Amino acid sequence: MQRLYPLPSTEVPLDQVYRDLGWPEPPPDRPFVALNMVTTVDGAAALDHQAQPIGSATDHRLMRCIRANADAVMIGAGTLRAESVDPSVPAAFEVERVQRGLQPQPLAIVVSASAELPLQRSFFHSPRFQRVVLTGPEAPEDRLRRLRPLAQVVVAGTGAFDLAAGLRRLRQQLGVRWLLAEGGPTLNAALLAAELLDELFWTVAPRLAGGQAPTMVAGPLLPAERQPRLILRSVHLQDSELYLRYQVGSAHHAPPAE
Amino acid sequence: MQRLYPLPSTEVPLDQVYRDLGWPEPPPDRPFVALNMVTTVDGAAALDHQAQPIGSATDHRLMRCIRANADAVMIGAGTLRAESVDPSVPAAFEVERVQRGLQPQPLAIVVSASAELPLQRSFFHSPRFQRVVLTGPEAPEDRLRRLRPLAQVVVAGTGAFDLAAGLRRLRQQLGVRWLLAEGGPTLNAALLAAELLDELFWTVAPRLAGGQAPTMVAGPLLPAERQPRLILRSVHLQDSELYLRYQVGSAHHAPPAE
Repeated sequence: MQRLYPLPSTEVPLDQVYRDLGWPEPPPDRPFVALNMVTTVDGAAALDHQAQPIGSATDHRLMRCIRANADAVMIGAGTLRAESVDPSVPAAFEVERVQRGLQPQPLAIVVSASAELPLQRSFFHSPRFQRVVLTGPEAPEDRLRRLRPLAQVVVAGTGAFDLAAGLRRLRQQLGVRWLLAEGGPTLNAALLAAELLDELFWTVAPRLAGGQAPTMVAGPLLPAERQPRLILRSVHLQDSELYLRYQVGSAHHAPPAE
Repeated sequence: MQRLYPLPSTEVPLDQVYRDLGWPEPPPDRPFVALNMVTTVDGAAALDHQAQPIGSATDHRLMRCIRANADAVMIGAGTLRAESVDPSVPAAFEVERVQRGLQPQPLAIVVSASAELPLQRSFFHSPRFQRVVLTGPEAPEDRLRRLRPLAQVVVAGTGAFDLAAGLRRLRQQLGVRWLLAEGGPTLNAALLAAELLDELFWTVAPRLAGGQAPTMVAGPLLPAERQPRLILRSVHLQDSELYLRYQVGSAHHAPPAE
């Protein structure tokens, strides 16, 4: 794989690209939050509701490398309903994780205010990783009762689910310092609206989908002055597929748009 | 500006980046068609219906450099209705264009099957460039009569407007060899559906819009095997904004998706 940026550009082994992300110490009250997404050039983040067919095998390998840096991998309930999800990392990463002070496998976190989840899925029965369901006070108690044998349940918010409060709980109760979000677009919008995003990994698959597909973020259009500005950290390339890493800047401290 | 790809990466003066695109000879029966678009990282191609606020001043300068290579600049009626459009190139490019065998200014082409266009706009009265309205047999004759003093009218299609037939007319009647499309998403979808796209210039503005915005292509989602594969030709970078150039490959000749 070719690293194009930062310069000088150089050939790098695929396994080294996102091997050690050098994430900074997290803020005191929540985890550092990175998001990893793949889209087509025309912005499609899912085809037939699934993100997995968009990226190449290389993208899938890099996804696992990024996961290997995180205490926990977080997805929205829609993603879990739409596709097969296994957030675990290959056994080869486990020793390295432990050496870095991480658990052998990342926690698997599902966000669902209603806690209405497909409990029959293998996701809920895998012995490879531990599960957390991040939910709100609106979730009915009988659902939580069925969930508890399969996952740790964290209820966050007063009156209604509060994602920011949920991330505080992840940090304080579960010790999650580096959190990797993997979509879908609804969860991404919630992270963006609450200004909880610190970093973005974005794979650009070299194809055009044509339209009518979910995009990376499914929220309201933000006013220009509230749109986060991004700072490009690195660019990698293989077979016309681009792997981009951005730091998410504060919209408030961004230079005005031209 | 930094060229990251092709290698070796190098610093290049902005004016040289897309100065001479080296476009190939067009197919015999239509122009070579390039598309130039700007989006945010999350795929928004317009904010409040306008593309111009998304890109930086650098993007706008590169847009004019690309135009300087084309016989004609083509937009959809929706783009003309939504924002101020002036497809002309700076006077400094005119001599160079003539030396390359182009007219001093590109033709300005508006695509509108209905020919319902905002004729009061300065676009229709500028002395800087010549206008063509590409329309279909469904356009009422009284509209065409009002248009003809302001633009050359080309009617294409039998029974209904046919974009492919229109591009053949542009080549055969008006001598358009290199055509630059500049959106919007509806025209892009028509070009894609008719397999008329040869090249894509894409500026990725380093920001997140949040959602609910038009994307690059507003058509039906294509089945995976009909999605055009793209071949990355070059990557330039300035101030975290990426300028990407792709060749559009045939979906039929693409390797199978993994």
